[in-house]
Order: sequence, then C-alpha cells, then structure tokens
Amino acid sequence: MPTSPAPENLVPPTFEDVQAAAERLAGHAILTPLLESPLLNEKLGGRVLVKAECLQRSGAFKFRGAYNRISRFNDEELKAGVVAFSSGNHAQGVAMVSQMLGVSAVIVMPTDAPVIKLANTRAYGAEIVLYDRETESREEIGAKLANERGLILIPSYDDPFIIAGQGTVGLELASQARDLGVKLDTVIVPCGGGGLSSGSALALSHESPKTELYTAEPEGFDDTARSLAAGERVANEPGGKTFCDALILPTPGELTFSINRKLLAGGVSVSDADTARAMAAAFKYFKLVVEPGGAVALAAALSGAYDCRGKTVAVVCSGGNVDAGVFAKAITEE
Amino acid sequence: MPTSPAPENLVPPTFEDVQAAAERLAGHAILTPLLESPLLNEKLGGRVLVKAECLQRSGAFKFRGAYNRISRFNDEELKAGVVAFSSGNHAQGVAMVSQMLGVSAVIVMPTDAPVIKLANTRAYGAEIVLYDRETESREEIGAKLANERGLILIPSYDDPFIIAGQGTVGLELASQARDLGVKLDTVIVPCGGGGLSSGSALALSHESPKTELYTAEPEGFDDTARSLAAGERVANEPGGKTFCDALILPTPGELTFSINRKLLAGGVSVSDADTARAMAAAFKYFKLVVEPGGAVALAAALSGAYDCRGKTVAVVCSGGNVDAGVFAKAITEE
Repeated sequence: MPTSPAPENLVPPTFEDVQAAAERLAGHAILTPLLESPLLNEKLGGRVLVKAECLQRSGAFKFRGAYNRISRFNDEELKAGVVAFSSGNHAQGVAMVSQMLGVSAVIVMPTDAPVIKLANTRAYGAEIVLYDRETESREEIGAKLANERGLILIPSYDDPFIIAGQGTVGLELASQARDLGVKLDTVIVPCGGGGLSSGSALALSHESPKTELYTAEPEGFDDTARSLAAGERVANEPGGKTFCDALILPTPGELTFSINRKLLAGGVSVSDADTARAMAAAFKYFKLVVEPGGAVALAAALSGAYDCRGKTVAVVCSGGNVDAGVFAKAITEE
Repeated sequence: MPTSPAPENLVPPTFEDVQAAAERLAGHAILTPLLESPLLNEKLGGRVLVKAECLQRSGAFKFRGAYNRISRFNDEELKAGVVAFSSGNHAQGVAMVSQMLGVSAVIVMPTDAPVIKLANTRAYGAEIVLYDRETESREEIGAKLANERGLILIPSYDDPFIIAGQGTVGLELASQARDLGVKLDTVIVPCGGGGLSSGSALALSHESPKTELYTAEPEGFDDTARSLAAGERVANEPGGKTFCDALILPTPGELTFSINRKLLAGGVSVSDADTARAMAAAFKYFKLVVEPGGAVALAAALSGAYDCRGKTVAVVCSGGNVDAGVFAKAITEE
C-alpha cells in the first residue's frame, strides 16, 4: 500500500512543481476570470481584482490540488481507492476527481458541514463517513480507514502535490495581471491550512516578486497571521466560532507554514459581519456566489483590515459552496 | 448632428462585422467562461454548457454592443453626448462605456426598473430620465432629447454595430466549444429585441453551421418565437406580466428579425416559475448570480421547454443585475 510520508519528511514543492501542475491541469481546470468593478474601485479608492475561483470545477480551488495529487498515482496504486478528510471543499474536489478518474473515494466529513457540501460529495459518488467535530478526530478516522482498507490518504494541504496544484491560482493571477498590463501591489488569499497561500507564494515570488502576499482568516481562527508574526506555528484558542466552515483548523500546516514563513508578507483577520458584507458585495458588483470562507480575502479589502487605498490588490474568492439560506441572509441584510 | 437611419434603411451586419467587433472589444470586454456541472448534466441526461455573460462588464452582455457602437463615433460627434432608452442593462452598458470614453450620457429608464439597475446607471455618471411604462413612450422621449440637445441615440438592438457587438458572444461560444473539443448541437439565448440572438446567429452560422440556435422568452412575451413560426413580426398581447424586466418588449426588432427569420431554428417560452428555478440552479451548480431575464435560456433547458436529452446544449446566462430580495426569494423557494 502506498502511504504518504509524515509532513516533516516531505520535501517542499518548488516553482517548477507549480508549473508542472499547471501543465497537468490544462484542459481540466477552468481558467477562472479576473473580474473588476469600477464602481467598487471608486468607493474604495483603490483597485481590486477578484480571482473567481468559486467558478472552479467542484465550486472551489480545491479541485486543482486534488487533481494534481490523485492523477499522479497509477491505476494499480489507485485500485483500492482514496480517502480524505475535509469540511467540504477538499471533499468535493477529491470526490469529483475520483469520479473523473474512475477511482472509489471515502470522505470523512463533519456532521455540521453545509448541506450542499455533503450532498455534492455524495452526488460525485463518494462514500461519506461522518464524525463529530467536538469529540472525534478526523485524522484518526482517516488513518484507520486507510490502514484497514488499503486506501491512499489524500491530504487536504500538507502535501507537495496539493500545494503545487493550489499554486496554479497564483500562477494564473500573475499571468492574467500581466495580460491586463496591471502591476499587482498585493494579493490576499483566504487561509485555512495554508495550501492556497503557500502554493500561490511559490508562484508569485517567482513571477511577480514585488507583489506582497497576505493571508485572510476569520477572527478567532487567525493562527496563520499570528504564526507569521511569531515566526513559529501557534494554535487557535479553542472554542472560537465562525460561519466560515471551510477555515476552521487548529494550526497552520507544517509543510505549508515552512513555505509561508519565508514568502508571505503577513496575515489579516476579519469578523463574520465583514465577511457577510463581502458576500453581499460579490453578489452586487461581481455577480458571484461566494461562500463565507471564500469571501474573507475580499472582506479584508473591503473592511479596511487591509488598506487598499492607492493600491492594486488582487483577492481570491476561493469557493462558492454555500447553502441558499446562508447566502440569502448575507445579501439581504447588508 | 449625426443621426441613426431608421431600421428599414439599415444594412444588416455580416459575419465580418462580428469579427471586427471582436477585435475592437479585445482587452475591453471580459472573455466570459463557459461553465459545466457534471451533477446537472447527469440529472438532465444531456450536456449543458453555460456562457456566463452575467460576469461581463456592467453585469450583462449589453456592454459589448454599447462599446462597439459608441467607440465608432469620433470625439467631435460625441461632444454633445449620447442618449439611450432601456429597462436597465443597455442603460448600464451605455453609461459605463460613456464613462470609459469620457462622453456624457442621458438614459431614459422606466420608473419600475430594478433598484440596482437605476443605481448603477447613475453611479456610472449618467443622467437618468424616468418614464412611466404604461402611459409614456420611451422612443418619443429619447427622440425629443436627441433632437433638443443634439445627442446621439444609441439604439438597444436595431443597429448593425449593436448586433455585431452582441454577436461576439456567439463567436466566443463557438471558439470555446472548439477548444473543449465539443460539438454544439444547440445554443439557446434569452431574447428581448433580438440583438443577442441575431448577432450570435451571424457568428454561429459561419463558425458552427450545424448548431441550431433557439431563442428563449418569458410566457406572454414570446413575440420572437411566434414571429419565427409565422414568418413575420407579430406583437405580444398587451397586459402580460413577467418578472423578467429585461425582456419586456412589444415586438421583435426590424433589423434583428430580418436576420433571425433566416438563421434561427425557432423559439421557446418559459414560465416565471421555471425561470426562478433556473436562477436557483445557476446559484447551486454554477455559483452565478443570474437575473430573471438572463436565466430564461437556462430555464428552457432545465424545464424541458427545450429537450436536452442526449444533446450538447450551450445556454447564455445573459445578465446578473438583480435586486437582492428577488434573488434571495428565487434561491430559497426552490
């Protein structure tokens, strides 16, 4: 049975790995557009470009890493199937890619995941194993399933192929900005485990070295921001609450943080109220459906948590898998 | 003062005019993505591709025609400014293009236009003149303003440059389908005056001649479908009601219908309930905000008004300028 080595034994990916991922994803991932609203720019006194990854296959950037990881195994290795644990977007990415490649998938998901994420993961043909976020360990359940059934564990962020796959978002951003003749001062990305930020950092530090990269996190879950400030991985206080279900993680990843500590400019945090307002702005100005966790970078730009005035700032709207009631509330209460 | 000739004196545009429009729009219009959901395809038993024109600048395809038309006049001609009448999407397109080119714009809009359309048109710097849909003629108000103030009237559909500009949607569709290796059996587009359908017909009949093009309209406003069946322009019965504010027009355009009668396969109509369900599907499967009038082609595919089984069908989601309350209702009542 092929097993992934523990993160501390993994070699971090390089820029060339991100390029290789882009070649592998060509024709499979959507080249998501970079959108702009002159009305919003005028309001902010800066220029904000939105990378619409909510339009990505499976409704989130996670498709990129999942495809780049799973498609590297051969048929023999994939015979028993794959297993992943995820609050829902990595789940859908792994389930969708598995269906495309004819691989069976088991996904360990929390009981309180959004209905749309559970339903879509199931609709892509995956077997779902539910766990209780408060009392059970998804890592243990995942490891047990991998051992007992010979499944390949597909990590959600601490893996060089996953990081390189997510990094294609940063690679596309740099290329799209160049095509528009735009010099990016800053890029802000939503951050959970750090796959999107570390991969994008590899791409941007090579392709647009003067661009500063920041993470955005929900208040109470700003472990990456505080870890970057401290120079080492620190954990969130237990008991925090946020409606950003995709970003509820205890600490930065080991492999992802080893990259982020070298390449990131810093991290900012936003309140759920700021995030709801960003969802409403994405609806109004960009005609995009963005889920709470996917909207925190836009929220950082709109709320002033990151000051955009006089700057050109690209934000990644990283996912759009949100239940209708949550979305309707965000857009009508603004 | 430059004036537009009456439609009966206009020469219909050709495929070459659509190509020229595409060259003029390059770098100005968004190349909107063609999206697909395997989950929705499975449900329908066919393949549906969504051309996401709600992501276009100004939130609707109308930017294309407005830019292709206004940018053809020289500075001297544009000195006094432009005037247009529109329920809201042509309004925003003309206002946005005018702001980009430093031209003043007066827009004649109905008092019952969606709040977002009125607010955005004003925010792009246009002067708004309101009229009552029931008792006043927007054509007369527009003509009076053009005469009195020397403004250039920018027609919303019956103009060769407007038609050619909207036709770039069809041109992109054909090219994107080719890139995906997809043979399009059918394309369905929302239809009001017929600019999008006639322009797209010019493009598709040249680039993808085996593809059949259909219009979609709200029930009670299916003047184009009935005109195509009759072989001549027929009007809608007065008194009809629909929440598709962008598609409330009495008859097909003269110039647009002269093209559509030759090149279109037919037209279908959908109920407002079907359209609301299509808005909910666009939210759920494609993460797109689509307004009622922009969702009728998707509604045709989902409701069975056009039978997609066993076929590959592209639908244009033509606009996303919808008030939050209307959108929230559509996605939560599904």
